[in-house]
Amino acid sequence: MADEVVLLDFWPSAFAMRVRIALALKGIKYENKLEDLRDKSPLLLKMNPVHKKIPVLIHNGKPICESLIIVQYIDDVWKGESPLLSSDPYQRAQALFWADFICNWARKVCMTKGEEQETAKKELIECLKVLEGELGDKPYFGGENLGFVDVALVPFYCWFYSYETCGNFSIEAECPTLIGWAKRCMEKESVSNSLPDEHKVYRYLLQVRKRIGIE
Amino acid sequence: MADEVVLLDFWPSAFAMRVRIALALKGIKYENKLEDLRDKSPLLLKMNPVHKKIPVLIHNGKPICESLIIVQYIDDVWKGESPLLSSDPYQRAQALFWADFICNWARKVCMTKGEEQETAKKELIECLKVLEGELGDKPYFGGENLGFVDVALVPFYCWFYSYETCGNFSIEAECPTLIGWAKRCMEKESVSNSLPDEHKVYRYLLQVRKRIGIE
Repeated sequence: MADEVVLLDFWPSAFAMRVRIALALKGIKYENKLEDLRDKSPLLLKMNPVHKKIPVLIHNGKPICESLIIVQYIDDVWKGESPLLSSDPYQRAQALFWADFICNWARKVCMTKGEEQETAKKELIECLKVLEGELGDKPYFGGENLGFVDVALVPFYCWFYSYETCGNFSIEAECPTLIGWAKRCMEKESVSNSLPDEHKVYRYLLQVRKRIGIE
Repeated sequence: MADEVVLLDFWPSAFAMRVRIALALKGIKYENKLEDLRDKSPLLLKMNPVHKKIPVLIHNGKPICESLIIVQYIDDVWKGESPLLSSDPYQRAQALFWADFICNWARKVCMTKGEEQETAKKELIECLKVLEGELGDKPYFGGENLGFVDVALVPFYCWFYSYETCGNFSIEAECPTLIGWAKRCMEKESVSNSLPDEHKVYRYLLQVRKRIGIE
């Protein structure tokens, strides 16, 4: 029996993009079901009753939730192609640590104003610089190839334009090495085909800001 | 060469207890270095420069940070004895999901008053009931034996007395099945020897509350 793979997805979600990239890297065919987060489907509520959040991967009827857990699962099940996590326990632990370090830091840059926004910008740049330090002179966090941390981080790149526009600053000026890395990742079709256009993300963000009253 | 294992520890930390239990279950000898969190050691700052937090496991000179990542690492390196995570990808993903679900929900019960505390109590009980649902009628979350989720959750049991005393409520009255599970875990020496006495934890908490001005 062929594997039945369904992704409960939301196009602007960087967390969902992680899963899309992992599926693309592994060459897995799947059905993409786009959710309306303001009117969640009965399927989403059934498959992730605890957090009621996307992304959810449904593999042969069984749900897996939380983006980093899903990416690990995909790497565990479809081992052969493009391994994402090392089989070495220390390398594995390091990758999990750095992936875990990547939070939704930048949200605040787009959702605040004035002093609060300045602080959020500083925090974002500090975190990105820490990641630059970890990248060092490797082409990818995974070394010569895309790995777990690359998959966890690169989706946020399509949000950078929004952060920069909202915050009126340049991430590239502060973190040129990281931008070089992101552009290198974007040369891979499995990445670029999984990420929406940065302007489309920005238009989406403007709608959200309008809805919640930040303008 | 024998493995050199050092744990940077803090006795009341439930996150550190996770690591102590995992090391005990695997029968690993280690050196325990107790940290003073108000005057962190140069070793801690060197080994976990990003978060500067305990627990840190130092294995043959190399640091591993974040309690759940450390427990996975221990399970990966010392595979034979007491496996904690299943080799089945789905079981593994489920265990990671539930371990991840366990946060420091209860902190608020001890650090707030009045209505805010009532809300925190309700939230704690709701979360514990969700966990009870997941436990079902299994003896342990891991099935017939202690597993990853058991190791992640049971340390909080030695804090229950503090939550109950601060919040003036009974967790056992609300979640008898979960308390039955915790008592079953405590029958294992690897667990009971890794957890401090609940009254000692409460005395520690009273000091913290005094220091930060909640009385």
